[in-house]
Amino acid sequence: MSDNHKILLDEKDIPTHWYNVVADMPNPPAPYLGPDGQPVTPDAMSTIFPPALVEQEMSAQRWIEIPEPVREIYRLWRPSPLYRARRLEQALGTPAKIYYKYEGVSPAGSHKPNSAAAQAYYNQQAGIKRLTTETGAGQWGSSIALVGGMFGLDVRVYMVKVSYQQKPFRRSMMQTWGAEVLASPSDLTQAGREALAADANNPGSLGLAISEAVEEAASRSDTNYTLGSVLNHVLLHQTVIGLETRKQLEKVGDYPDVIFAPCGGGSNVGGMMFPFLADKAAGKEIRLVAVEPDSCPTLTRGHYAYDFGDTVGLTPLMLMYTLGHDFMPPSIHAGGLRYHGDSALVSQLYKEGILEAVAVPQLATFEAGISFAKTEGIVPAPESCHAIRATIDEAMHCKETGESKTLLFTLSGHGHFDMGSYDKYLAGELEDYEYPEAAIKDALSHLPQV
Amino acid sequence: MSDNHKILLDEKDIPTHWYNVVADMPNPPAPYLGPDGQPVTPDAMSTIFPPALVEQEMSAQRWIEIPEPVREIYRLWRPSPLYRARRLEQALGTPAKIYYKYEGVSPAGSHKPNSAAAQAYYNQQAGIKRLTTETGAGQWGSSIALVGGMFGLDVRVYMVKVSYQQKPFRRSMMQTWGAEVLASPSDLTQAGREALAADANNPGSLGLAISEAVEEAASRSDTNYTLGSVLNHVLLHQTVIGLETRKQLEKVGDYPDVIFAPCGGGSNVGGMMFPFLADKAAGKEIRLVAVEPDSCPTLTRGHYAYDFGDTVGLTPLMLMYTLGHDFMPPSIHAGGLRYHGDSALVSQLYKEGILEAVAVPQLATFEAGISFAKTEGIVPAPESCHAIRATIDEAMHCKETGESKTLLFTLSGHGHFDMGSYDKYLAGELEDYEYPEAAIKDALSHLPQV
Repeated sequence: MSDNHKILLDEKDIPTHWYNVVADMPNPPAPYLGPDGQPVTPDAMSTIFPPALVEQEMSAQRWIEIPEPVREIYRLWRPSPLYRARRLEQALGTPAKIYYKYEGVSPAGSHKPNSAAAQAYYNQQAGIKRLTTETGAGQWGSSIALVGGMFGLDVRVYMVKVSYQQKPFRRSMMQTWGAEVLASPSDLTQAGREALAADANNPGSLGLAISEAVEEAASRSDTNYTLGSVLNHVLLHQTVIGLETRKQLEKVGDYPDVIFAPCGGGSNVGGMMFPFLADKAAGKEIRLVAVEPDSCPTLTRGHYAYDFGDTVGLTPLMLMYTLGHDFMPPSIHAGGLRYHGDSALVSQLYKEGILEAVAVPQLATFEAGISFAKTEGIVPAPESCHAIRATIDEAMHCKETGESKTLLFTLSGHGHFDMGSYDKYLAGELEDYEYPEAAIKDALSHLPQV
Repeated sequence: MSDNHKILLDEKDIPTHWYNVVADMPNPPAPYLGPDGQPVTPDAMSTIFPPALVEQEMSAQRWIEIPEPVREIYRLWRPSPLYRARRLEQALGTPAKIYYKYEGVSPAGSHKPNSAAAQAYYNQQAGIKRLTTETGAGQWGSSIALVGGMFGLDVRVYMVKVSYQQKPFRRSMMQTWGAEVLASPSDLTQAGREALAADANNPGSLGLAISEAVEEAASRSDTNYTLGSVLNHVLLHQTVIGLETRKQLEKVGDYPDVIFAPCGGGSNVGGMMFPFLADKAAGKEIRLVAVEPDSCPTLTRGHYAYDFGDTVGLTPLMLMYTLGHDFMPPSIHAGGLRYHGDSALVSQLYKEGILEAVAVPQLATFEAGISFAKTEGIVPAPESCHAIRATIDEAMHCKETGESKTLLFTLSGHGHFDMGSYDKYLAGELEDYEYPEAAIKDALSHLPQV
């Protein structure tokens, strides 16, 4: 085993329960607030979510059983492999040990199906026949498309029109799995029709696509809405990542000194790091570092305040780090990290000093991703390149200090549908973009008054 | 174990030796012939291949040791998983058991790196500094790009110009791994310059790209040529597929009644089936079925004759099933199966009735691929869809007869870079194409006279 690249588990080692970090947080999570400033009730949420997910969203129970039909879907690709990055370590000449948990083995190519499978299952159980969702670059839309059909549900994906036109291959993938994919704005919703009336050539935005998907789900009793990050139940489902990783490290007698994960809405950070959090609370020395793009520096430069989860203000208000719900990040290539806010749980734990955060520039992330591809083989998703960048920086720091730390990161997905971004990087067409302080101040001045 | 989807092995179970089918063939392989009609000498081959590969090409030794540095590269993704297709079986309602060996877990996305790693290693050992190769759709070029850099070799890929322009993402992937990718015809070789002089807008062809890559390798002492299929040493390296599969089936106490593999140049067929061939010789009842496109029906409608391996006639003459070296198959989407000939070893074993072959139409392969994706999750490469089609047909036959046969196929790769083909299929833009008998007769009338 000692020289192995991969540390594998059997299917019987897939966790039987998700881990709910709320049980071990120093303080209870701040409640979501409705338009009236009062905590949102389960009833209000059940317009677009099934009862089981509403319950999970508000639960403080430490362990929540994973239903067998969800584990059955997980077994198509889980447990995912943990790799020791021996070739990368050697190329860097670092005394640090580097491990990465590879979630790109799912058929959709990222960690996203871990929650999609659960969401599809609970909706089916609640008698729901159709799911709606939005997608930008397509990772989440693909994941719901993949599992929706497996649970006998029709899936409609509102895909931001500019992505729909420019990145047709994620669209084809969703259609291959049987989902209906529409360019957003569409003429099927009021939100879409209004946008088209104002501008027939509206290229769409993630915020608008959310509005369309939510509007449709709220207006049909057979239809619910699904979201791929930010919410507590999504992060809960993703804890299979960290739970498996713990077992895999135990198998080789190791434990991380530092964990890095890319951070957009927080599903990767929560999924990998929450299962290590109780150890930290118990006094274990472990650093948990969220890595975000410095062009969308939510944790590192945002405010901790109540804000909407979407651009147009349809969601409840959540207490989180935010750049303002109308903050428009530049069109960087790590599409999954272009989010103005962050998971309320991740935000609170960051506020309390339990999680750390670092922001990295775009060019340096692609440089790191290419070093990784040349040594370890796998071409990483641009989102994952953020975690790789931070890990390599730490490993090089270890080289200076001579410390043989154990570093761990989530390789959240492969980059097979992102080669256009690599193309632009290799052609020297990408730039770094640091948001001007004035622009962030302006966006933050629009925060809702609670 | 009994309900598992995946049957996994440890890295220590990666085969230590490749299996050379020549040792167990009823008759020795027919020799390759040079332009003079005499058997090709090792010396003649060593202009573009390193000594170890020339030796393997002509060896009759049953087991050939896999060098440790090659196994070290294999360990980045091998052993590849064997899946029991439980969800597909259930959807078909068949009493048959279906297994598939998934080679798409390699960083390049197919089985091709199994040979690329070996070829790069032996060239490095021989003091070679540069490798050339050709690529059409890009699977082989990607594989050499992936491993070339790992062995410190510069890689130049001549990519058919029309693919270079229309399918930029495989190109970006090769560049990410550090390879130089040129559109063929290029102005760097005489073959390319002549083609461009005749037609400045020449879209290129695989045959012409081979000519460019071979010409460069033959003209530079620091440079060798690499090929991704057809040759004996390539099929030898691919036997890790079948050897692992045997172990995996033993682990669950099963053995195949029928094996299916897609067949273009034969590397997948040889890789999966050769390790089961000695059993068949020893009286075991097992059917070994190569599946080819009926638009390029080499085994099922070609002649068994000496022919060139390339379009322009630079290679030795090989005794094989061929449609004629100037046969031009239609532009089907399983690019890896568009080859006029077939491996000499596969051809001889087919001639002797040890292997079977079946041809399937294009639309039916995509239909099968989509059924597979909806049940098992993975979106298969169009080449792999051929094996899936034949397997599903056999499983449905079992349903009629009530037989619970054990079926096995190689899922040679994923379709992440082939979504444009799925797109066309889903839009109803693809057609079946059966080659007219007259066209095949015409191409066969150009066979070289030996």
